[in-house]
Amino acid sequence: MTKPSLPQGMRDFSAETVRKRNYIFNNIQKAFELYGFEPLETPAMENLETLLGKYGDEGDKLIFKVLNNGLNDPKNIDKATAGFAKVLEGKNTTELTERALKYDLTIPFARFVAMHHGQLTLPYKRYQMQPVWRADRPQKGRYREFTQCDADVVGSKSLLNEVDLANIYHHVFTGLGLKGYALHINNRKILAALAQICGGDLMTITVAIDKLDKIGEEKVMFELKENGLNDQQRKTISSYLNIIGSNADKLDALLKLFPSDAMAMEGIAEIKFISEKLPEVNLILDPTLARGLNYYTGTIFEVKAPSEVKIGSIGGGGRYDDLTGLFGVKDIAGVGISFGVDRIYDVLEEMNLFPPDLQKGLQVFFMNLGEKEANVSYNILQQLRGAGISGELFHEIAKMDKQLKYADKKSFQFAVIIGSQELQTGQAVVKTLSTGTQEKISFENILTFIKT
Amino acid sequence: MTKPSLPQGMRDFSAETVRKRNYIFNNIQKAFELYGFEPLETPAMENLETLLGKYGDEGDKLIFKVLNNGLNDPKNIDKATAGFAKVLEGKNTTELTERALKYDLTIPFARFVAMHHGQLTLPYKRYQMQPVWRADRPQKGRYREFTQCDADVVGSKSLLNEVDLANIYHHVFTGLGLKGYALHINNRKILAALAQICGGDLMTITVAIDKLDKIGEEKVMFELKENGLNDQQRKTISSYLNIIGSNADKLDALLKLFPSDAMAMEGIAEIKFISEKLPEVNLILDPTLARGLNYYTGTIFEVKAPSEVKIGSIGGGGRYDDLTGLFGVKDIAGVGISFGVDRIYDVLEEMNLFPPDLQKGLQVFFMNLGEKEANVSYNILQQLRGAGISGELFHEIAKMDKQLKYADKKSFQFAVIIGSQELQTGQAVVKTLSTGTQEKISFENILTFIKT
Repeated sequence: MTKPSLPQGMRDFSAETVRKRNYIFNNIQKAFELYGFEPLETPAMENLETLLGKYGDEGDKLIFKVLNNGLNDPKNIDKATAGFAKVLEGKNTTELTERALKYDLTIPFARFVAMHHGQLTLPYKRYQMQPVWRADRPQKGRYREFTQCDADVVGSKSLLNEVDLANIYHHVFTGLGLKGYALHINNRKILAALAQICGGDLMTITVAIDKLDKIGEEKVMFELKENGLNDQQRKTISSYLNIIGSNADKLDALLKLFPSDAMAMEGIAEIKFISEKLPEVNLILDPTLARGLNYYTGTIFEVKAPSEVKIGSIGGGGRYDDLTGLFGVKDIAGVGISFGVDRIYDVLEEMNLFPPDLQKGLQVFFMNLGEKEANVSYNILQQLRGAGISGELFHEIAKMDKQLKYADKKSFQFAVIIGSQELQTGQAVVKTLSTGTQEKISFENILTFIKT
Repeated sequence: MTKPSLPQGMRDFSAETVRKRNYIFNNIQKAFELYGFEPLETPAMENLETLLGKYGDEGDKLIFKVLNNGLNDPKNIDKATAGFAKVLEGKNTTELTERALKYDLTIPFARFVAMHHGQLTLPYKRYQMQPVWRADRPQKGRYREFTQCDADVVGSKSLLNEVDLANIYHHVFTGLGLKGYALHINNRKILAALAQICGGDLMTITVAIDKLDKIGEEKVMFELKENGLNDQQRKTISSYLNIIGSNADKLDALLKLFPSDAMAMEGIAEIKFISEKLPEVNLILDPTLARGLNYYTGTIFEVKAPSEVKIGSIGGGGRYDDLTGLFGVKDIAGVGISFGVDRIYDVLEEMNLFPPDLQKGLQVFFMNLGEKEANVSYNILQQLRGAGISGELFHEIAKMDKQLKYADKKSFQFAVIIGSQELQTGQAVVKTLSTGTQEKISFENILTFIKT
């Protein structure tokens, strides 16, 4: 028998971790509901066709594909064999794997909207908090199963949505105690103008700039050179990437860099509109922010964790003008944001920001000191549970030491002791475990005593 | 472009359904916590090896297997090709699929306990509420992704655990309004005694009896004949299956059927012990209850929905003496129960038992009647949201009709109207949408007005 283990990049969450994660989820969910977003859940599996081609070639490789069932059925063998040959050639095919695990929440959401757009009240505002799966190489802070929390609005081009979404970030992160967060903002229209001026391809430039944090400017420039951008073009990009100062300084610099480009002007005006409505938010205009996904068309957001922790991005999102167009339904504009829950967890842990009372234990522990005694204890316990008080009777007759050790490990608040003597007098010993004080309480008054 | 769709047996849950499902989850979770169980979450994917052979041959076929990534890497091709050949022969192999989606919550839990048994405080009581996946043929009430809610105790042989678990069922089902539920109970020791008396194999008999509800006694008897049981043996089983009457009558009949069998006596005594401690629970001793899974060794439970709905089992569980033994860790006894959430959902729907206020809408809707007006409205809205009141400002300037139609669809409670006139007077029109009444409220008093 092999020793049991977990697949790489997969995690078990025990009670303490579940409670901490739920604390984050609850904070995010409350904000989403406060801002008028409604829940949606989509299944773990999608048709592979729904996902392929939506995340770039690299993304396609990271999709977990689910083997078709019944491949040994004679009527399936030929198709499966053809599919397997394609897989060995590194080609995408649904012949062997019709289904796959979802890679993010955005594409399943777009698929949902495309399927139901006739019945939805637009603008449709949904939130979704579910796991996604990626066959990435596991490393610190990166897992193969992780939970995304997304909020999107579709069916509205209004920038008020961007304002709401930025305020949701502010609400959640200040609520979690992360006052030092920074919300970076940029606009794809500005990047498109940059590409136009340079004569380069928007995606090439976006993909290169997106790596700036990881590989540095020198390597970005090298990549752009490899992609055919000449000295002059690279110089423009370099001066763009080196715009610094306050948000107002940066807006000025951008206006100078694109003196009469209509597309750039639009992008700049959008940033201005949004930032003026967000006096409380720590908004940072960041020309180097690009975001790799190619469906963004306007505002892009990214949230950085407080600089004292070296964790980087803890959320991001942006505006897309035609996401459902991927599924044949045109002209449904949208904008959305995502929270990186696993990263946020690491930040709160490192900054010691989880509230201590998340891990509060059970309320009442009943000792088990004999068959008759246990019967009486269990009846009182059921009375307490009926009144919403959590508790346990020790599962077997055992020495008091052993029982108290268990009560201690599970952090009970009270211990109720009913032995043969207490059975006779009708009075239990009730011990407050944090202080060690104890009192005699008649059986019928235990509920009232615990309640108060 | 193909029309977007969902894989067979998969479901999207929109807001109304999510809220109803959460209502069920919350009720179950509260009961689990009340009885001292702690949360655990395990990943969607397990090593295929962990799952294979745990659910019988039929179960193995229904496991969703995840294709290994990087099969076209030269160093993987040989292994993958060998694996693919085995798959086409209908054999189990991990060469093509090292990972699989979890099929239930019990085996991943056993795997977790086997990995961590040294660090756990025993008895370890955990609950787990997560989706599982089975490649079953989809049909009404049976999906390929569905959520299980399990509670298990490991490290204790005490029957008090069975009593607690039965009380959890009672607590949850009465809490959900399902007073007509019935908790069927039997004991594998009695079935083992039956097998011994008949000279038949326990699993053969269990598997056959388990089908009684679906195929009827005649076909069960035919299956037993096919499996080599003679007339006399089948007669004994038939008289066992036809034990009727009150629980006391049935206990008497069982005592007569197994006059001096130690194993049967143990099973009967266990049922007696448990039932005496459950005066409130609608417990039905059911000799025909067998449950297919072969790891059960003592008590077995099954919950039937109220008879007015034809939905059948909505939960089940039982005692197993050596679940972690499958993973090399011996002597950790346990007992657990499971809730069939999808079935419970159907029952509540059919009996109209979901509370109407689950679907309460948002609180405050602000009309958008101009740029300046919207600015003022948004500031007030942010004040309300800061005080925990949910609301929205309409995303764009539009006709009042259009805006009110949206507010109606999303079931807001109040509409706040700030047009150019209200901007001058500093008083908004606040409309209570359920009654149609409206009042003028000064901007600074809107929060107080809505709160009260």
